[in-house]
Amino acid sequence: MQYTDFDKTLVYGKLGALARGGWDFAFTRELDAGRVTRCQTPMAGGLRYSWAAKAVDDRVLALLNELADEQELIAKYRALLDGEILNTGESRKVLHHLLRGQLSKAVMHGGRDLGAFYRAELDRFGAFADAVHGGAIKGATGRAFSTVVQIGIGGSDLGPRALYLALENWALAQGTRKMRAAFISNVDPDDASAVLAGIPLEETLFVLVSKSGTTQETLANELFVRAKLKAAGLDPRKQLVAVTSETSPLAHNPGYLDSFYIDDFIGGRYSASSAVGGVVLSLAFGAGVFRDFLAGAHEADTLALNPKPGENAAMLDALIGVWERNFLKYPATAILPYSQALCRFPAHLQQLDMESNGKRVNREGTPVSYATGPLVFGEPGTNGQHSFYQMLHQGADIIPLQFVGFLESQRAEDVELDGSVSQTKLRANLAAQIVAFAKGQTVAGANRNKEFPGGRPSSLIYGRQLSPASLGALLAHYENKVMFQGFVWNINSFDQEGVQLGKVLTKKVLSKATGDDALDAYSGMLGI
Amino acid sequence: MQYTDFDKTLVYGKLGALARGGWDFAFTRELDAGRVTRCQTPMAGGLRYSWAAKAVDDRVLALLNELADEQELIAKYRALLDGEILNTGESRKVLHHLLRGQLSKAVMHGGRDLGAFYRAELDRFGAFADAVHGGAIKGATGRAFSTVVQIGIGGSDLGPRALYLALENWALAQGTRKMRAAFISNVDPDDASAVLAGIPLEETLFVLVSKSGTTQETLANELFVRAKLKAAGLDPRKQLVAVTSETSPLAHNPGYLDSFYIDDFIGGRYSASSAVGGVVLSLAFGAGVFRDFLAGAHEADTLALNPKPGENAAMLDALIGVWERNFLKYPATAILPYSQALCRFPAHLQQLDMESNGKRVNREGTPVSYATGPLVFGEPGTNGQHSFYQMLHQGADIIPLQFVGFLESQRAEDVELDGSVSQTKLRANLAAQIVAFAKGQTVAGANRNKEFPGGRPSSLIYGRQLSPASLGALLAHYENKVMFQGFVWNINSFDQEGVQLGKVLTKKVLSKATGDDALDAYSGMLGI
Repeated sequence: MQYTDFDKTLVYGKLGALARGGWDFAFTRELDAGRVTRCQTPMAGGLRYSWAAKAVDDRVLALLNELADEQELIAKYRALLDGEILNTGESRKVLHHLLRGQLSKAVMHGGRDLGAFYRAELDRFGAFADAVHGGAIKGATGRAFSTVVQIGIGGSDLGPRALYLALENWALAQGTRKMRAAFISNVDPDDASAVLAGIPLEETLFVLVSKSGTTQETLANELFVRAKLKAAGLDPRKQLVAVTSETSPLAHNPGYLDSFYIDDFIGGRYSASSAVGGVVLSLAFGAGVFRDFLAGAHEADTLALNPKPGENAAMLDALIGVWERNFLKYPATAILPYSQALCRFPAHLQQLDMESNGKRVNREGTPVSYATGPLVFGEPGTNGQHSFYQMLHQGADIIPLQFVGFLESQRAEDVELDGSVSQTKLRANLAAQIVAFAKGQTVAGANRNKEFPGGRPSSLIYGRQLSPASLGALLAHYENKVMFQGFVWNINSFDQEGVQLGKVLTKKVLSKATGDDALDAYSGMLGI
Repeated sequence: MQYTDFDKTLVYGKLGALARGGWDFAFTRELDAGRVTRCQTPMAGGLRYSWAAKAVDDRVLALLNELADEQELIAKYRALLDGEILNTGESRKVLHHLLRGQLSKAVMHGGRDLGAFYRAELDRFGAFADAVHGGAIKGATGRAFSTVVQIGIGGSDLGPRALYLALENWALAQGTRKMRAAFISNVDPDDASAVLAGIPLEETLFVLVSKSGTTQETLANELFVRAKLKAAGLDPRKQLVAVTSETSPLAHNPGYLDSFYIDDFIGGRYSASSAVGGVVLSLAFGAGVFRDFLAGAHEADTLALNPKPGENAAMLDALIGVWERNFLKYPATAILPYSQALCRFPAHLQQLDMESNGKRVNREGTPVSYATGPLVFGEPGTNGQHSFYQMLHQGADIIPLQFVGFLESQRAEDVELDGSVSQTKLRANLAAQIVAFAKGQTVAGANRNKEFPGGRPSSLIYGRQLSPASLGALLAHYENKVMFQGFVWNINSFDQEGVQLGKVLTKKVLSKATGDDALDAYSGMLGI
């Protein structure tokens, strides 16, 4: 297996030559029903990936196939599954796939089978959730727990929060939401204060999540919670559980009702499938729902082993993204879910993508001279249509889009107006936007304000309903897409050195050391 | 007054020559305490605009001053205040400033003094809110209203929602939150269904907001609400008020308890200061709080008349943004509030900016060949530090940043850990990030993974506390910034033709017309 900078591959030059050599994609002529039928790839969880409205023709596709081969994307994915160390800067396995199922031989570390370890923790926190739901575990005063509050930040917050919101209405409609969940993340004290003011403290189980056990924001918020519990005469040891690594100060600590473990091989932004997401989601929805979610993700991980990009949606999505980023030179990409339940999913994907691939050195630590991870952002449709879509349609820059949509709503409650129900309107808007972005509109006359240039590429991920399994498939799709892009760019998608400097400077400011620390806290915050 | 495309101005060539001619800004050397003291501008509401960490030196500043003069930014702002028609495509005044106070002679239309009209509506909905709070207006069954739910989308949702969240904890801490507010926006039926399941229907007053009275999503959601009320045996006419224009089908309609009016001169994304934001905010917090908010905005509008960019924060922010967009070629900008209360403020600014200036033709309808409005996105800090900041620090592209922060929290509840309270940690992080982005960090040795290139520009808006007045000042700052940028680019910042094509295609899909309408609804959504 070779690790090669992207611009040192043979196919890099070919792709560049194609893009520069008068290559063009005639959306208006090319995008027809036949292309829509041809350009789609099945995904896990009953989803489909449709790329008919992407600026990709057979020549591009052939080169993207070459790229997948030359950068050995599947071999690298397999090596990662096998627990090989892919990164030179740190000796860390990358094992979030193993949380969802075994796709390799047993991965051993320090004499331990890590797959078995993850399964045992899954069993443990599933049983814990069952005991809470069954009433065997109760609060400090003997009241049943009705509410769970996760305390965490970054990967310990965005993913679990987005997934909870994605399934909350599905579970309510099924009558299977076991507990309401809330989240405290920001070190802004108003965050914890407001959340704590809105919950029944006596019936609330807190899940403290920090892999290292040293995350400043999370420890401050834990203190907030403990102070509140004590002030209410409640014993924090009866109402807090910890999710952490076995080497952290939170592990095996009598200050917690129970503790569940991950290890250093589960990156924060990839930890939603571990106890980091699993404890809160199992408590909220039941252990079975979380297992269904993992099964959807595992199915996606399995499909991602297919070496043919045309049959591997995560790989194809990754390769098309590389074409757009490095050769069509688009600096950003938008995630547009036509599903209110996915309202915070773009924020999680923003973290997943930008924290993984927002890098400027290769895996050896040498700066690269090509573009890497794009800016990722998004809001749900149809809301966005009344907002930033103006710029997407008629702005100066082209921003590639990815739509996500479903045939059915989650709550199955609807009204008919003007001959259609709202869910039908939602889907009609989605289809209309894809075509409007692709084909645009010309106008007669001198005033071209009503002209839409078109040529704005989009893809679509579509399924029957947002459910635990399809949500798992969706999450794993993006994780695998980001992984494949990291392999193409020859970067380490699994570290985050870019967050360190701010931490160091913050500590200096707080320690009130002398000198111009963070420029004397930005000159005493301007004297206010 | 002249309207000139930006690239036809004299200063455009000078700025381009400066940027191309080896211009550079040495952040590490330049950014010192003296520069922080010098490079700040007072704003309304007790806020300060600090631009010390922007890549702007005296030469750039001199040319930005020339630009303000050559494009006659103040004269155009004054013309807009006077009610002159600035736009050629449509004969529409732009009067959102007038909602906050009179900065010009009386603006007349059809024999009516529009300032007086806006003030009268402000008085009317203020009195209505007082009557609801006092119990003179009650629900269909005689119960007092405890909850207000706004039904609207785009400008009728994002601004009012962001402002409500910004002041909710401030009001709770003061003990002056009069009613809880919720919002229904998406045509996804799960949105309305879930919100309605979580409120006390009998005690809920609904505010239906649609200027035209024809917004598809909003009418569908109104129907949802009316059906729910009827099913509960409640009379919708006693629990719904309308905010609309006087010419809409919702106006003077006995189907509503009361109606409050705006007119065609208040654009959706600029309507938070009108009844669109005012009714829900007055109900939630009291009419006095909304007036304080307007006073902060009016103070900002007044300061924005200052012709010297160095003393006019909105204009300077706009001009620096133009320098970054057109000459340093940065395609995006991030809004990073270190305040959980501003969690949805970036989504509102995304709409405000991208819908206003995401244009490719000038005010005459002729395509322009320079970049216009950038991509705008953001999430609160410190959360973002554990997420997408990786890419901001070490990614391939430079993304200019704007931080927002406050000395004090809103709820004044805090805990001390490691010698500092959380609010102090929040501020320390903010200061540390500004310096880290600007100055970066070099490392010894071959592995440059821990290197931060620096040179990533940021500005800061900082104040004592997020309050009604400072929030009004903040909102108006951004509105005026966007306006000034539109003047520089010679575009119409007050239309949104880019949303029309999608609407037309959606209607075709829903009418089931024959032919390839929206490509047969994107080929029957792929057969699922």
